[in-house]
Amino acid sequence: MIPNNMIWADDNPEMALTKPVRVGNSLTVGGQDVILMTGPCSVESYDQTRTVAQEVARLGGRVLRGGAYKPRTSPYSFQGLGREGLEILRAVADEFDLLVVTEALGVEQLPLVAEYTDIIQIGSRNMQHYPLLWAAGEFDKPVLLKRGFMSTVDEWLKAAEHISSRGNDRIVLCERGIRSFETATRNTLDTNAIALIKQTSPYPILADPSHATGRADLVFAAARAAVAAGADGLLVEFHNNPAEALSDADQALPLAALARFRDEVGKVAQAVGRGIR
Amino acid sequence: MIPNNMIWADDNPEMALTKPVRVGNSLTVGGQDVILMTGPCSVESYDQTRTVAQEVARLGGRVLRGGAYKPRTSPYSFQGLGREGLEILRAVADEFDLLVVTEALGVEQLPLVAEYTDIIQIGSRNMQHYPLLWAAGEFDKPVLLKRGFMSTVDEWLKAAEHISSRGNDRIVLCERGIRSFETATRNTLDTNAIALIKQTSPYPILADPSHATGRADLVFAAARAAVAAGADGLLVEFHNNPAEALSDADQALPLAALARFRDEVGKVAQAVGRGIR
Amino acid sequence: MIPNNMIWADDNPEMALTKPVRVGNSLTVGGQDVILMTGPCSVESYDQTRTVAQEVARLGGRVLRGGAYKPRTSPYSFQGLGREGLEILRAVADEFDLLVVTEALGVEQLPLVAEYTDIIQIGSRNMQHYPLLWAAGEFDKPVLLKRGFMSTVDEWLKAAEHISSRGNDRIVLCERGIRSFETATRNTLDTNAIALIKQTSPYPILADPSHATGRADLVFAAARAAVAAGADGLLVEFHNNPAEALSDADQALPLAALARFRDEVGKVAQAVGRGIR
Amino acid sequence: MIPNNMIWADDNPEMALTKPVRVGNSLTVGGQDVILMTGPCSVESYDQTRTVAQEVARLGGRVLRGGAYKPRTSPYSFQGLGREGLEILRAVADEFDLLVVTEALGVEQLPLVAEYTDIIQIGSRNMQHYPLLWAAGEFDKPVLLKRGFMSTVDEWLKAAEHISSRGNDRIVLCERGIRSFETATRNTLDTNAIALIKQTSPYPILADPSHATGRADLVFAAARAAVAAGADGLLVEFHNNPAEALSDADQALPLAALARFRDEVGKVAQAVGRGIR
Repeated sequence: MIPNNMIWADDNPEMALTKPVRVGNSLTVGGQDVILMTGPCSVESYDQTRTVAQEVARLGGRVLRGGAYKPRTSPYSFQGLGREGLEILRAVADEFDLLVVTEALGVEQLPLVAEYTDIIQIGSRNMQHYPLLWAAGEFDKPVLLKRGFMSTVDEWLKAAEHISSRGNDRIVLCERGIRSFETATRNTLDTNAIALIKQTSPYPILADPSHATGRADLVFAAARAAVAAGADGLLVEFHNNPAEALSDADQALPLAALARFRDEVGKVAQAVGRGIR
Repeated sequence: MIPNNMIWADDNPEMALTKPVRVGNSLTVGGQDVILMTGPCSVESYDQTRTVAQEVARLGGRVLRGGAYKPRTSPYSFQGLGREGLEILRAVADEFDLLVVTEALGVEQLPLVAEYTDIIQIGSRNMQHYPLLWAAGEFDKPVLLKRGFMSTVDEWLKAAEHISSRGNDRIVLCERGIRSFETATRNTLDTNAIALIKQTSPYPILADPSHATGRADLVFAAARAAVAAGADGLLVEFHNNPAEALSDADQALPLAALARFRDEVGKVAQAVGRGIR
Repeated sequence: MIPNNMIWADDNPEMALTKPVRVGNSLTVGGQDVILMTGPCSVESYDQTRTVAQEVARLGGRVLRGGAYKPRTSPYSFQGLGREGLEILRAVADEFDLLVVTEALGVEQLPLVAEYTDIIQIGSRNMQHYPLLWAAGEFDKPVLLKRGFMSTVDEWLKAAEHISSRGNDRIVLCERGIRSFETATRNTLDTNAIALIKQTSPYPILADPSHATGRADLVFAAARAAVAAGADGLLVEFHNNPAEALSDADQALPLAALARFRDEVGKVAQAVGRGIR
Repeated sequence: MIPNNMIWADDNPEMALTKPVRVGNSLTVGGQDVILMTGPCSVESYDQTRTVAQEVARLGGRVLRGGAYKPRTSPYSFQGLGREGLEILRAVADEFDLLVVTEALGVEQLPLVAEYTDIIQIGSRNMQHYPLLWAAGEFDKPVLLKRGFMSTVDEWLKAAEHISSRGNDRIVLCERGIRSFETATRNTLDTNAIALIKQTSPYPILADPSHATGRADLVFAAARAAVAAGADGLLVEFHNNPAEALSDADQALPLAALARFRDEVGKVAQAVGRGIR
């Protein structure tokens, strides 16, 4: 399976297949720098989102993450602020000159979400919802395609082809943990998959250590591992008050930890010859 | 589940539970340095083993790994050199002042293996073979307990208790990849588990990126990820001629890559405040 | 977890929670009879579909299955005939007085599919595509909700609540195999889940032995097992010429086997006190 | 993968590969009858075991199961009565003219266990403990080889070869549930594997619905499913007082249910053309 002339990729820099993807006018994912995309799981209010965005910007971050439409296992959980959430995201991002990544749950929301966001996120549960992939393939915006939590790398790359087959190849993949038999953690971060994507796919690959662990106390370690394995960026949940978060309270890091997080991840990025933004 | 005062462990250095384990007279696992344990999958001959050991020692390595008794899925595969393999390992290790780690497949081999090795390895398939755990618990030698490839962290720690309950608590754990639905890689390296062990167990934790990936081209990345997640050491397969290895040919790195491997892993170790040996 | 007075459910007929669901004017799923829903994976042509429907009707079957919109892992595989497929299904079903079950891939197809079908099928990949669940919840048609191949029973029942929360509680569940580490079969039929649903949910439960095995040579055995475990019906792929099927060729049974299939399954149904239709 | 002339095995009786295995002087496993092997998880006392054995014999059962050596995840759980348990098993079995199946945990116990039992059981955790397989291969007694809960069918059949390569091919396989992501049940009964074994292996195949579900309320359904899928027998836990069982209390059926259990399973056996003993 492994060609004779490619005993190990680290010795073959020309093997680096990643083609950088442009986001907005001033950022590139999949290039020299590891890109941090941080923010709350859900946009809960203007004040909450602005507080987080301000800190993200102050520390040099470039991308704000946050959910306006939330896929929830139970129909009785908080489902997000919807359009109001999108408006809040855009407003605070513009105030602090940040880019936005947020999820579109379905085809019908796509035009609205695309109007407000810089990166269209497709969630793990929707990785094989083909109508959504096809619709996203018609937009001129980068698409962040999360891995289905029980999808193989091969199925994931084929899902990306469903998008690119419609004309949009500005695709960024995101490993967010897979489901295994282990129950001590919410998911299992598949660092092997990150390494494999770097060698077999042109798409940049991010990791989401928040969902991949489901535990705030493991997020630092998972983030470092992902970057060491070759991740081109991280999607991480930070909240100004994790204990009161309306979703994913167990896995959000406190905003006060963001500076230290950037510092620790930055050191690992440097160890593999990269910077962070 | 996560205590309020332990939002994230990296900010609580006193949370570091690891108690270092002494190996031989001059080495400690679980302390400041990341310990590399390198060598062939199987001891195939004196010359092969000596060649590898010489390079390990030349580059500053302290521990030689190699199998004399090999657990093989098929009864018709190469099963190892047995006692002769142990004698070779000991001889070349002594020549180059290295320590030895090698596997005991069953209770009846344990006295012999313990006579020749510095660390008794218990393999993944045997993690819940209790008679072997009890017998290893009677020796005054460190035991390297590999995680069952489909065992939870909780079962793994309970397996360690089967050893310690007999009096031997010089236990070193080794995450070697778990079985998931993904088939592109031989196993899935569970970096979450490494981070979890660091926070919940006193035992040092190694990783085996060779078995965890099953592909030579992913071993560098997996090794970096494991160290970034907090691993106290690595067990890695190197062969002077991987294409002709009698076992695990797909995952062994060429000996010529060892220097570079130590260099790359060393940089990540440094990024998390550690050295390597 | 198990109440004292419910040591084993078979001794507590009053534990049978299933509430039958009406389909069309003349059929009930979840009642006394095991309902067979048979037909081709994909509607490929009028002649093919009519040939299959005729045999289904001749043998006393009541429901014709067939896909007009096919979710395919690769964008380059056959995607179904779409509207033409729906028209063919309806026409031949009406000719032979059969009911139709067929899948709606996305929200936008739902009105059209609902116009032609008697049961709206939601596929495994879409089990957590909430906009589709909500939309299906607005129709006055039974919904067949396949289990996500990566979803727990608990998540599955919560997905059903996403439908019922919109007003439609005519829901029929379908176990179609889950993904495990085993690769000799396409999926793993979870007969435990069938038994569990019978005791904990009001929704009737079908099984799809074709997808659950992925191998024609195992479909008979899996169908018998599902009915023995308590399944209220089966969704099974039969093709007039399996070797030339445009999708799922490996798992379709030849139409010539339908009579024998009904006979064998009927005997097991009888052994558990039920009939078949 | 599937030969053209073998579209579905049920139509090819000559495909039935199973070679019956003789147990004791008067019983055959893998022949016309489905063999029930019932009894407590652990032998706890003479009175308890005799009470169960008496009922087994009264209802026409032929094989008594019970553990004298118990593999337990925690070293602090009840580990079985050991030699005394073997003596009790043999004594009550002889009194009621039953055959015995019991587990040998390790190589060193094998001679003793073989002296007292009619079938040597090798447990799930030990499926790849090769020294035990090799040792069992030296005895002239049938070996019941449970599937590792993490092992593929292919690995299982190769484990059987480790036994047969030493000369003993009186091997009976037992599917006891595999580990999946589902947590509502202790394991996932793999009925597909039962069907696959019937078509690809000469060894008879049993199922253990007690361990495969871990819940007494699902054991009847799982037992019926296994027999419908082709199982040649069942290994089932019955206890005279499940609430006070020293191990596996949640999954043991009350002895009072045995008559009904035999009746229900017998009907399914009849539906697939077999009897029960």
